[in-house]
Amino acid sequence: MKEKDIQRILEDVKNGNINVENAMGKLKDLPFEDLGYAKIDHHRGIRNGYPEVIYCEGKAIEHIQGIVEKMLLRNNNILATRADRKVYEAIKEVCDDVKYYEIARIVVVKKQEPEKTKNKILVATGGTSDMAVAEEAAITAEMLGNTVERLYDVGVAGIHRLLSHKSKLDEASVIIVAAGMEGALASVVGGLVDKPVIAVPTSVGYGANFGGLAALLAMLNSCASGVGVVNIDNGFGAGYLASTINRQIEKASL
Amino acid sequence: MKEKDIQRILEDVKNGNINVENAMGKLKDLPFEDLGYAKIDHHRGIRNGYPEVIYCEGKAIEHIQGIVEKMLLRNNNILATRADRKVYEAIKEVCDDVKYYEIARIVVVKKQEPEKTKNKILVATGGTSDMAVAEEAAITAEMLGNTVERLYDVGVAGIHRLLSHKSKLDEASVIIVAAGMEGALASVVGGLVDKPVIAVPTSVGYGANFGGLAALLAMLNSCASGVGVVNIDNGFGAGYLASTINRQIEKASL
Amino acid sequence: MKEKDIQRILEDVKNGNINVENAMGKLKDLPFEDLGYAKIDHHRGIRNGYPEVIYCEGKAIEHIQGIVEKMLLRNNNILATRADRKVYEAIKEVCDDVKYYEIARIVVVKKQEPEKTKNKILVATGGTSDMAVAEEAAITAEMLGNTVERLYDVGVAGIHRLLSHKSKLDEASVIIVAAGMEGALASVVGGLVDKPVIAVPTSVGYGANFGGLAALLAMLNSCASGVGVVNIDNGFGAGYLASTINRQIEKASL
Amino acid sequence: MKEKDIQRILEDVKNGNINVENAMGKLKDLPFEDLGYAKIDHHRGIRNGYPEVIYCEGKAIEHIQGIVEKMLLRNNNILATRADRKVYEAIKEVCDDVKYYEIARIVVVKKQEPEKTKNKILVATGGTSDMAVAEEAAITAEMLGNTVERLYDVGVAGIHRLLSHKSKLDEASVIIVAAGMEGALASVVGGLVDKPVIAVPTSVGYGANFGGLAALLAMLNSCASGVGVVNIDNGFGAGYLASTINRQIEKASL
Amino acid sequence: MKEKDIQRILEDVKNGNINVENAMGKLKDLPFEDLGYAKIDHHRGIRNGYPEVIYCEGKAIEHIQGIVEKMLLRNNNILATRADRKVYEAIKEVCDDVKYYEIARIVVVKKQEPEKTKNKILVATGGTSDMAVAEEAAITAEMLGNTVERLYDVGVAGIHRLLSHKSKLDEASVIIVAAGMEGALASVVGGLVDKPVIAVPTSVGYGANFGGLAALLAMLNSCASGVGVVNIDNGFGAGYLASTINRQIEKASL
Amino acid sequence: MKEKDIQRILEDVKNGNINVENAMGKLKDLPFEDLGYAKIDHHRGIRNGYPEVIYCEGKAIEHIQGIVEKMLLRNNNILATRADRKVYEAIKEVCDDVKYYEIARIVVVKKQEPEKTKNKILVATGGTSDMAVAEEAAITAEMLGNTVERLYDVGVAGIHRLLSHKSKLDEASVIIVAAGMEGALASVVGGLVDKPVIAVPTSVGYGANFGGLAALLAMLNSCASGVGVVNIDNGFGAGYLASTINRQIEKASL
Amino acid sequence: MKEKDIQRILEDVKNGNINVENAMGKLKDLPFEDLGYAKIDHHRGIRNGYPEVIYCEGKAIEHIQGIVEKMLLRNNNILATRADRKVYEAIKEVCDDVKYYEIARIVVVKKQEPEKTKNKILVATGGTSDMAVAEEAAITAEMLGNTVERLYDVGVAGIHRLLSHKSKLDEASVIIVAAGMEGALASVVGGLVDKPVIAVPTSVGYGANFGGLAALLAMLNSCASGVGVVNIDNGFGAGYLASTINRQIEKASL
Amino acid sequence: MKEKDIQRILEDVKNGNINVENAMGKLKDLPFEDLGYAKIDHHRGIRNGYPEVIYCEGKAIEHIQGIVEKMLLRNNNILATRADRKVYEAIKEVCDDVKYYEIARIVVVKKQEPEKTKNKILVATGGTSDMAVAEEAAITAEMLGNTVERLYDVGVAGIHRLLSHKSKLDEASVIIVAAGMEGALASVVGGLVDKPVIAVPTSVGYGANFGGLAALLAMLNSCASGVGVVNIDNGFGAGYLASTINRQIEKASL
Repeated sequence: MKEKDIQRILEDVKNGNINVENAMGKLKDLPFEDLGYAKIDHHRGIRNGYPEVIYCEGKAIEHIQGIVEKMLLRNNNILATRADRKVYEAIKEVCDDVKYYEIARIVVVKKQEPEKTKNKILVATGGTSDMAVAEEAAITAEMLGNTVERLYDVGVAGIHRLLSHKSKLDEASVIIVAAGMEGALASVVGGLVDKPVIAVPTSVGYGANFGGLAALLAMLNSCASGVGVVNIDNGFGAGYLASTINRQIEKASL
Repeated sequence: MKEKDIQRILEDVKNGNINVENAMGKLKDLPFEDLGYAKIDHHRGIRNGYPEVIYCEGKAIEHIQGIVEKMLLRNNNILATRADRKVYEAIKEVCDDVKYYEIARIVVVKKQEPEKTKNKILVATGGTSDMAVAEEAAITAEMLGNTVERLYDVGVAGIHRLLSHKSKLDEASVIIVAAGMEGALASVVGGLVDKPVIAVPTSVGYGANFGGLAALLAMLNSCASGVGVVNIDNGFGAGYLASTINRQIEKASL
Repeated sequence: MKEKDIQRILEDVKNGNINVENAMGKLKDLPFEDLGYAKIDHHRGIRNGYPEVIYCEGKAIEHIQGIVEKMLLRNNNILATRADRKVYEAIKEVCDDVKYYEIARIVVVKKQEPEKTKNKILVATGGTSDMAVAEEAAITAEMLGNTVERLYDVGVAGIHRLLSHKSKLDEASVIIVAAGMEGALASVVGGLVDKPVIAVPTSVGYGANFGGLAALLAMLNSCASGVGVVNIDNGFGAGYLASTINRQIEKASL
Repeated sequence: MKEKDIQRILEDVKNGNINVENAMGKLKDLPFEDLGYAKIDHHRGIRNGYPEVIYCEGKAIEHIQGIVEKMLLRNNNILATRADRKVYEAIKEVCDDVKYYEIARIVVVKKQEPEKTKNKILVATGGTSDMAVAEEAAITAEMLGNTVERLYDVGVAGIHRLLSHKSKLDEASVIIVAAGMEGALASVVGGLVDKPVIAVPTSVGYGANFGGLAALLAMLNSCASGVGVVNIDNGFGAGYLASTINRQIEKASL
Repeated sequence: MKEKDIQRILEDVKNGNINVENAMGKLKDLPFEDLGYAKIDHHRGIRNGYPEVIYCEGKAIEHIQGIVEKMLLRNNNILATRADRKVYEAIKEVCDDVKYYEIARIVVVKKQEPEKTKNKILVATGGTSDMAVAEEAAITAEMLGNTVERLYDVGVAGIHRLLSHKSKLDEASVIIVAAGMEGALASVVGGLVDKPVIAVPTSVGYGANFGGLAALLAMLNSCASGVGVVNIDNGFGAGYLASTINRQIEKASL
Repeated sequence: MKEKDIQRILEDVKNGNINVENAMGKLKDLPFEDLGYAKIDHHRGIRNGYPEVIYCEGKAIEHIQGIVEKMLLRNNNILATRADRKVYEAIKEVCDDVKYYEIARIVVVKKQEPEKTKNKILVATGGTSDMAVAEEAAITAEMLGNTVERLYDVGVAGIHRLLSHKSKLDEASVIIVAAGMEGALASVVGGLVDKPVIAVPTSVGYGANFGGLAALLAMLNSCASGVGVVNIDNGFGAGYLASTINRQIEKASL
Repeated sequence: MKEKDIQRILEDVKNGNINVENAMGKLKDLPFEDLGYAKIDHHRGIRNGYPEVIYCEGKAIEHIQGIVEKMLLRNNNILATRADRKVYEAIKEVCDDVKYYEIARIVVVKKQEPEKTKNKILVATGGTSDMAVAEEAAITAEMLGNTVERLYDVGVAGIHRLLSHKSKLDEASVIIVAAGMEGALASVVGGLVDKPVIAVPTSVGYGANFGGLAALLAMLNSCASGVGVVNIDNGFGAGYLASTINRQIEKASL
Repeated sequence: MKEKDIQRILEDVKNGNINVENAMGKLKDLPFEDLGYAKIDHHRGIRNGYPEVIYCEGKAIEHIQGIVEKMLLRNNNILATRADRKVYEAIKEVCDDVKYYEIARIVVVKKQEPEKTKNKILVATGGTSDMAVAEEAAITAEMLGNTVERLYDVGVAGIHRLLSHKSKLDEASVIIVAAGMEGALASVVGGLVDKPVIAVPTSVGYGANFGGLAALLAMLNSCASGVGVVNIDNGFGAGYLASTINRQIEKASL
C-alpha cells in the first residue's frame, strides 16, 4: 500500500471513477487473508520475491496442513521450518512435490526453481554438531535465491583448519558463522574479513553453556567489528538476514 | 600476507635474490607495529579503506595520546570512540584538526574527507534518550564513507510517527534501529521493510530493563526476519556493520 | 465477616440472644470448609459472583475429584484450569454436564448460564501459537460473565494486520494481549488506545527467549503507558484481572 | 485520524473542495510536532484528556526546557517525572506556576485544575521506604483527574495494620500496591478484595533483592488473582494504568 | 574424637599401656567405614541420636542396597529420601520392616521407635501442591524424634484461613513454612509469631516462578525477622534444621 | 489481641459494662500508632521483650528523628541499623545516651540493660572483611538479650584455624556463620556440630561473586544439614533469628 | 608445522630440490583430513603423544562410526567420551578391542598401552554422586599416560574423612576435585596443599543449585589460591588439564 | 603439623621428655597468630616458600598497617594486592622499602630477592585494557619466584598478531591468558599449544558483557582442552596458580 496507490485511489475518487464507499474499502482492504487461526500474508511473497514460510514448532498438524493448502492455491514456493518427520508426512498428504531436509528440519515445496545469485553466502561452523543450525541457514538462503557455500568444522581450537580455507572467506559476500560452546569462531572470522558476518550461536555444549547463552554473549561481545547476531539456534533467521543483504548486493550489481 | 606474497618470496629464494634467513624473517614480519602496550595495525586502515579506530574506555590518557601520535604519522583519519571531554582535550594537545561530537562521545581527526556512498544508511531511534547511541552509530558510519540519514523519536507507543515516515525506510539500503525499554521498534521496522536491519539495544530504561537486557532479548527474539543484533549501547558496532553492508552494495553498484 | 455481622453478634450478646461461648464460636467460624488436603472457600463464589476455580497442575486426580464433588454440593459453576485430557475424564466420572476446551486446557461445569456484560473484553494475540494462552484467558473471562471478542495473529511483523482492525480495539473496554517472542504487540496496542491493556507474555519462542522471559521483560518495559502484566502463560490470570476491571465498569454503568 | 476524518477528506476530494495534492497532505499531516530531538504529540493530551508528560531521566536540561516551552504554547497541564531538583529549577526558569513534589520527584505545571472522579484509587505501601514510588503513583493519578487515597506502611510483617484498614480497601475502585523486599502485600491485598490491584515492585531492600527483582517475581507469581504488575519503581506507570481503569468506571457511572 | 580421648591415649602412651605405633593408629582410626563408593559415618547416628540418612537421587540401585545392608548391621533407624517406588522396592528386597511414604518420597526402616518431644514443630503450607515438600519435612522431623503438627493450604490469598488457626502457630516451638508461587506465607507467619520460622520455597508455580526462584528470593527478602531459608524443595533440610532447634529446646526443658 | 481479650470484651458487653459501640472500637483499636509516614508498633517491643528497631537505609533523616522521638516516649531500648555517621549524629540531637557501633553501622539507645542468657550464640566469620556483617549480627543479638561470643577469620582456606577452636563451637547453642567468597565455612561448621547454624552470605569478594550470590547459593546448597540461610549481608536478620532460637532454649531451661 | 619445517622447505627451494609450486603446496598442506562432516586432526595425536578423542554427544551414530574407522587406520588409541551404551555398541561393530566404562560414559580403544607417569594425579570427590564426573576425569587422565589415584566421598560435611587421608593429598602432583552442591571441597583441599588443584563443579544437587551453577560460582570464588576451574560436569576437561600439567612435571623430572 | 611431628611428640611423651599436658598443648599449638581482627598464618610463608599476601580491598587502613607490621617482624617478603594509592602510602608509613606497581595495584615489600625459575610463565592479553589484570598476574608470579614473559594486545580480531609470536607460546611452561569482551583468546591459545593455559576473564567490555560474565562463560566453554579458569579480574589467582604449576615443574627439573 504505497503512496502511489493512495494517490491513484484519490484521483479515481476525484474523477468519479469510484465512489467514496469503494475508496474507503480499498484503503482498508489490506492484502492478507484470514483463516481464523492464522492471517496469511500472500503479498509478502510477492513483495519480497521470497517463498512463503511456515514456522511449524508449536502449531497443530491440522493447522499446518490448512496453511499449506491455502498457500498452494497461490502457487508460491513453501519453506516449512522446525518441521519434524511427522510434520513432513502431514504436508506430503496435502501436496505432491515435497522434499524433506532431515538435518535442517526443513520441508520444501518447490513450485518454481529459485534463481541463483552470483554473489555467494558462505556458511561456516565451529564443529560437526553445529550442522543442524548451519543447514537450516544454508537451505533457507538457497530457497531465497542465493548461491551458498559450506565450510564446516573449522573451530578455533585448530585455527589452521580455518586459515587454510581463507580463500573461501575471501570469495563470499556475506558469511554466516554457526558456533556453539564459546562461539569464538565469529570473532576470528570477523577479524579476517571486511564483510558482513552473521553470527548464530548454537546450543551445542553443556554445563555453563546454559543452552547457548555462552556463545550468544561471546558473539555480542565480539572484539571484531562487523558482526551481527541472531537468536540461539536461529538458522532460519541467519539465512534470511544474509539473504536480505546478499540480494541487495546482487540487485546493485545488475 | 597473501598467497602472492609468499609465492614471490619463495621465488626470490629460488633465484637466490634473498637467502633463507631473510625469507624466514619476511615470512614472519607481519604488518603491525609494537608500542609495548598496544599493537597498532596500520595495514588495517589500508586493507579496509577505513579510518583507524581507538576505543578509549579504560585506556590511560597517555596511552591514547601515544596511539594517536603513532597514527598521525600514517596520515589516516582517526575515530576515537567512548571519549569523554578529558580524552578530547588530551588528543587536542597532540593534534590540531580535532572535532568533538559530545553526544556521540566521539573524537574525529579528519586528514582526508571520506567519500560518500550513493546508497543510504538510515539511523532510527525509539526515543530522544537513545540519541547518544544513535549518534555514535551515525558518525561512525559517516566516517566510514557512508551517506547517513537520521529518523529519531519514532517509538512504537505512537506508531503513526513511524508510519508517516515510511518513505525514509524505503529509501535506505540498510537501517539501524537504536531503541531501549522494550526495543519493539526493531520488530516493527523489520516487518515494514525487506532490507537488512541492524538492531542496537540501548540501556535506556530502568527497573526490569536490567541495563538494556530487556531490549536485547526482545531484539534477538524479533518476530520479524532480517534483523541482526549488536551489543547493548554499541553504536559503533552498529555503524560499522551497516557500513560493511552498505559498501558492499555500493561496490556492486559501481 | 463484615463489620455489620460483628455488630449484630455483639448486639445479640448484649440482648442475651446468644451467650459468650456461642459468640466466640461465631466470630471464629469462618466460611471455609476443610477437606484435609485443601481448604475450599465456598463463600468466595458468593462473594465474587464468580465460579469456583481449581488449578489442576500438580494436583492428584483423586484430590481433583474430591474437590469437584464438594463443589457440586454448592451448585456453583466450576472452572478447572491447566486440565489435561486425563483430568477432564476424571471430572466426567463424578459429574455429568462437563465441557472440555482442549486448546485452553479448561474443564467447565456450567450449573447456571453466566450473564453477559455489555462492555467487551478483547483478546488479541501476536501469532497462532499464542492461542492456547489466549483461549485460557477468553474462556475464563466468559465464565466470569464477560462478553469476549477475539483478534488473533495480528503480530507487529505485519503491522497492517493490526491497524486494519483498529475498530475492534476501539470497541473494547479492556484489552488482553497475549504474545510471545519479543512481545512487542502489547506496546503497539498500548500506544493505539487509551484503555487498560493486560499483557500476558507467552513462552512461545526459542533460544534467548528463555521460556517467555524476553516477552515478559519487554512488556514490563513497555514504552506505552497503561499496560499491566501478568505471569508468563498465565491466561487465567489475565482473564480474571480483565474481568475484575470490566465488571467494575459494568456495575458503574447500571 | 479517525475513519470519519478520512471519509470527509475523500468527500472533499470528490466534491472538488480540495485537490489531490492537498488531500495527500492532509492524510499525512499527522498531529505531532517535530523538535528535531523529540516529536511531541500534542493531540495525545486532547485525545486522552490527560496532561502532557515528560520523562526527565537521561534527557539534557536544555532539551527538557525546550519541550516544556513548546508544551506551554498549548496551555495543557504538564507532568514531569523523574525530575531531580536541578530539573525543577530549569523548568522554573521557563515557566511560572511550577510545583515540585520532592519525594515523588515530580514537577507539575497546572494550567487548569483537573476534575476529580467520584470513584477512588487507593495507594498502599508495605513500608515507609516505598513512599517515593507510591507518591509518584498518587500524584500521577491525581493529575490525571482521580480522587486518590493513601494507606502507607501496612506491610505483611504486621498483618493487623492492614486488616484494621480493611474498609479503605473496600471503598476504593482500584488499588495500587507499592512494596519492596518480598512484595507480599500485593498477594494479601489481592486476596482481600475483588477489584483490580496494580502491583508496583520497588527496589527497596538489599542483597538478594537484586534491585527489586525479588518483589517483581513475587508479584508476578501472586497466588491471588486479579493482580497486574508494572515495572520496578514505575510509580508513574501504576498511576497511569489505575487512572485508565478508574476513568472507564467513572465514565460508565455518568 | 574428643579432647579426652586424645588425653587418654597420651596417658596410655606415657604409662606404656600402648606403644607409639598403636597410638598413631588410634589417633588416625576415625569412626567411618569405607565401602569404596561411599564412606558411611556410623558414629554420626550415635553422635546425633538420629537415624542414618540416604539421599537416593542420582545413586545406583545397587549402591543404595549396599549402603542399607551395611547400615542394618548397626541396627539404627534408616531414612531414605528422594526415593521413588523403584528405590522402595529395592530396599524392601534387602530388609523386612520398610515403610514407604509415597507423597513424601521417603522410605523408612524403623528399628526402634523414636521418642517424641513435648515441644512441637508445626509444618504449614500455602497450597495443596506444596504437600510433597511439606510431608518430606514432617516425616523427617518425626523420624528425628519430634512431635509434628500439620497445617496445610493456608496461603495468603485467603488470609482468614491462616488467622483462624493462629492458636496452632502459638502452640508450636518451631514453624516450617513450605510455599511456592510468591512464597508470601513465610512473611505473614513470621510477622504473627516470635519464634523461629524455617522457610522452604517449593518449585510449585510456573512461568516467571523459574522453578522456585520467585519463592526463594521472596523468603530471603522477608520483611518479617526471624526467618531462615533452606534450598528449594528441600523438605528434608527444613525438617532437619527444625529438629536441631526443637531438640535443643527439649534438652533445655529436661 | 488474644482470645482472652475478646472474651473479656464480650463479657463486658453482656454485662452491660460497655456498650456495643465501645466494644466495636475496642475490637478495632489495634495497638499501633500512626505517624502518617510510619506506623510504629509499640506493643511489638512488649510482646517480644525486644528493643524497638529502625531500619535506617532509605529513610529521611527527619523521619528517623521523628520515629526515635516517638519511641523514646515509651522508654524502650532502640536499635537503629544500617545507620551511617550522619544518622548517628541526627539521633544524638534528639536523645542523650546514644552509642554508635561504627563497623556494625548500628546506633543503640539503651534505656535498660538487656539481661544476658546463659546459652551462648557464637558468631564466626570466614575473613576479616566479613566483620561488618558479623558485628551487625553480634550487636543485634546482644541487644536482644543474648550472650554472644565471636570467632573471626577462621575461613576454610586454613582449616586448622577453625579446628583449633572446635571447643567454641561445642559451647554455643546457636552458631551464626558470616562468610563471603564461596561461603564454604557454613558447610564445614554445619558438619562439625549438631546444632542450628544460621548462615549469612556476605557480599565480600569480586568478579563472579556477583555481590554475594556465590556465597548465597553455596549456603543454600550446603551438603551439611541443619543450616538456615538469611539474605546477603543481613547481619541483623541472622542475629534476630539466632536470638529467637536461643531465647526459646533459654526459656525452656528456666 | 614448526619453524624448522619451514626452514627445510625454504632450503629445498633454494637448492632446487623442490619447485615453488610444490613448496607452496607443502606450506599449505596442513595435517588434517576432511570427511565432509568433520575434519580429523591426526597429527594432534602425534604432536601431543595423546589418544585421539571423540566427543560423542550430539553426533549421529553413523558419523561416530565413520570417524572411528578413519582413526583406526592411523592405529592410535581412541577415547570416546559422553558415550552411552548405544554409542558403545556402534563402535564395537567397527572395531574389536573396545572397552566400555559405563559410569564414566567412556569408550576406549587401546592400540598400545599408555606409559604411566611416576608423578600422580589424585581425583577426589565430595560425594558418591559425583563419581560419574570423577571417573570421566580419572580414565581420561589414565589414557593420557598418567598414574591416577582416587579418593571418593570426602565432602566437607564430615571434614575428618578428608583430613584422615591428608597423606594422599601430599603424595599427588596435581589434584582434581569434583564436587556438586556447594562445591566447598575445592576450597578446603586448596587450603591444605601447595600444588595445582583443578576444580570441576558437578550438576549434583537440586533447587537453587541451578544445574551446577552454585558449585561453579563457589569454586571460582574459592578463598584458597591455586584453584583452576573447568566447566560443569567436564570431567574430560579436568583430566586433560591435569594431564597437561602432570606430563610437564614428568618431562622435567626425566 | 605433619605425621612425623606427632610421632616425635608421642615419643617424647613415652620417654617422659614432656608430660601429657605439654603434649596436649603442642598438639593444639597451631602455627598462626591472632590479631583479634585477623589470624595471620606465618608458617604459610615458610610452608610455601612464598611471600605473605594481603588482599587489601575492604580492609581498613589501620588493619592493613597492623598486619604489615606483624609480618615485618618475620622478615618475609610481602605482596599487598588490590591496593590503591592510599593503601600504598599507609604501608610506606610503617615500612621503608616499599614499591608500588600502579597499573597492577600491587604494593611489594621485598626483604629478599626471590630466586628465578628457568621455566617461564607467559602472560598474554587480548587488548591493552586487560593490562591491569595481566600485570597483577605477572607481578604476583614474579614475586613467587617465577621468570615471567609478557605478550600483550594479541587478541583474535587480528589473529596474525598472535600467530607471529607463536615461538613465545612454545617457549613457556605455563601460559596465562587475560582477556575481556568475548574472551576468545584463551581458546585460540589453547588450540595452539599442548601445555597448561590459565584463563582469567577480565571485566573489560560493556553492555551484554555483564561485568566479565561473557568472557567467563566463553572460557569455561572453551572448545580447546587444557584450559583452567579463575575468577573475573583475578590476576592474583591466575599468577598464583601458574606459579604453583611452574614451581612443580622447576622442582622436578632440579
